[in-house]
Amino acid sequence: MIEIVEVGPRDGLQNEETNIETDGKVSLIERAIVAGVRRIEVTSFVNPRTVPQMADAEAVCEALPNRDDVIYIGLVLNQRGALRALATERIDQLGAVAVASDSFAMANQGQTSEGSVDVAGQIIEMARAAGKSGQVTIAAAFGCPFEGEVAEGKVVAMATALAKAQPSEICLADTIGAGNPAQVASLIGRLRTALPQIPLRAHFHNTRGTGLANAWVAVQSGVSTIDAALGGLGGCPFAPGAAGNISTEDLVYMFERAGIATGIDLSSLVESNHWLGDVMQRQLPGMVARAPFFPASRSQAC
Amino acid sequence: MIEIVEVGPRDGLQNEETNIETDGKVSLIERAIVAGVRRIEVTSFVNPRTVPQMADAEAVCEALPNRDDVIYIGLVLNQRGALRALATERIDQLGAVAVASDSFAMANQGQTSEGSVDVAGQIIEMARAAGKSGQVTIAAAFGCPFEGEVAEGKVVAMATALAKAQPSEICLADTIGAGNPAQVASLIGRLRTALPQIPLRAHFHNTRGTGLANAWVAVQSGVSTIDAALGGLGGCPFAPGAAGNISTEDLVYMFERAGIATGIDLSSLVESNHWLGDVMQRQLPGMVARAPFFPASRSQAC
Repeated sequence: MIEIVEVGPRDGLQNEETNIETDGKVSLIERAIVAGVRRIEVTSFVNPRTVPQMADAEAVCEALPNRDDVIYIGLVLNQRGALRALATERIDQLGAVAVASDSFAMANQGQTSEGSVDVAGQIIEMARAAGKSGQVTIAAAFGCPFEGEVAEGKVVAMATALAKAQPSEICLADTIGAGNPAQVASLIGRLRTALPQIPLRAHFHNTRGTGLANAWVAVQSGVSTIDAALGGLGGCPFAPGAAGNISTEDLVYMFERAGIATGIDLSSLVESNHWLGDVMQRQLPGMVARAPFFPASRSQAC
Repeated sequence: MIEIVEVGPRDGLQNEETNIETDGKVSLIERAIVAGVRRIEVTSFVNPRTVPQMADAEAVCEALPNRDDVIYIGLVLNQRGALRALATERIDQLGAVAVASDSFAMANQGQTSEGSVDVAGQIIEMARAAGKSGQVTIAAAFGCPFEGEVAEGKVVAMATALAKAQPSEICLADTIGAGNPAQVASLIGRLRTALPQIPLRAHFHNTRGTGLANAWVAVQSGVSTIDAALGGLGGCPFAPGAAGNISTEDLVYMFERAGIATGIDLSSLVESNHWLGDVMQRQLPGMVARAPFFPASRSQAC
């Protein structure tokens, strides 16, 4: 059994050229729940001038289905964002972000790498003080768009520092989709040894086609949760080098066929992929939704 | 070190809507050689009425670069094809095909599965008698488009029967891109145990997004060679359910970044991807050629 977190409503839509309305975002979230997803990154509480796609964060939260069995994550980059997220009373979990390289930390959130660790720790503590959970993602953990290689030791040291704030989970993110399976196995192995008590999550983009290979190896190496976006949302076709998250439905196909349960229904995801393609007015990069079902089932035409 | 066989000129182009001229095929082969590929499936000797894209098999062979260090494979499905391939005197290796399910064997080559094993054995023996090498691919080894699941024991029994003809190599092909990494590890593990003396090759399509994950696990499980096509050629965009081979450049990126040498230059492949996209008049599915180089190198703009 592994857990898949649907990040399409936040990481996916934030990087799409087409902005969709609040009710479209809520429909995407509702569809994920119907398919069986039980943890969803629903929005981010960031500066609406910098990220206009997420300007409706509070409105999305107000419209969230009232489900005790679903964990709603709000991404926050600073204390101001954390206060906004906690004020909604609909966010169950804060997701903080520390960045593994200084130049990407400055570009993404105006902090040094070390500064981002400090702020992430504060956000986790704010979440816990409010009776919520807080987890943290180490962005650019497998490579930086400006600095290139990121040393494994740097990521392990950051995770060790972040662990002091008692996050519910640490996530390693391949923000630019540069990682490879050997690196995934090595880095996750080192984290498992250094921090055996903390659950690990992994987040991959399919920028260079390696996303599912990395996800497979991450699970084999001890990660319990993988992020994914319906349809592989997020790759803006107009921005060279930008590519989407790994596709939720491709990931579910791979794991379920390999005998690793996800709790998510593939047919339902495929139907939502087609709906989302209509909403986004483009063919989404996920592959399974374009292929015949395998093996053919009675509920689906082959 | 692993070996990558470029199959774009045959398996790729055979499944494209756009037919390209003989000189375009030869340019593709020349570009693969320049990039460092040393084994190439250059064409197939099949009925030109059934597969018009390969009607110029002899013309392609006549125009092949004269290279002692490159192995040219001709795919053949019967003795007539084998005689044609051997008559060219430019084909170094015959590639025969046995099919793991009866219904796909009938659709693909008008034989039962058992009949395809017999004919493949005869082709391998014809190759050896002519002083060439002969290898065999077991098609639909990970699933059949008509019958669904294919039993592992069936594939192992076929490989054992085929081994009697002394092929230089046995290849397992996921013809419809339905395989998953657990299945790849299991089936290749069983073949390694049953036939420890025979080199194994694997052939994956990216129909459901799992191609690179399967290729990674295949190499980890003991395969020495992987088939791939430049650009992920072969997925006809007009045929629902058809999708291309795994992309040579994505595969080279993954293995080289993971410290597993391929002998192939990624920059050269990326340049050829752009050339081939112009020739085919479509954006090819391979991802690396659309992404910035990582890590950025002086020879490439990032």
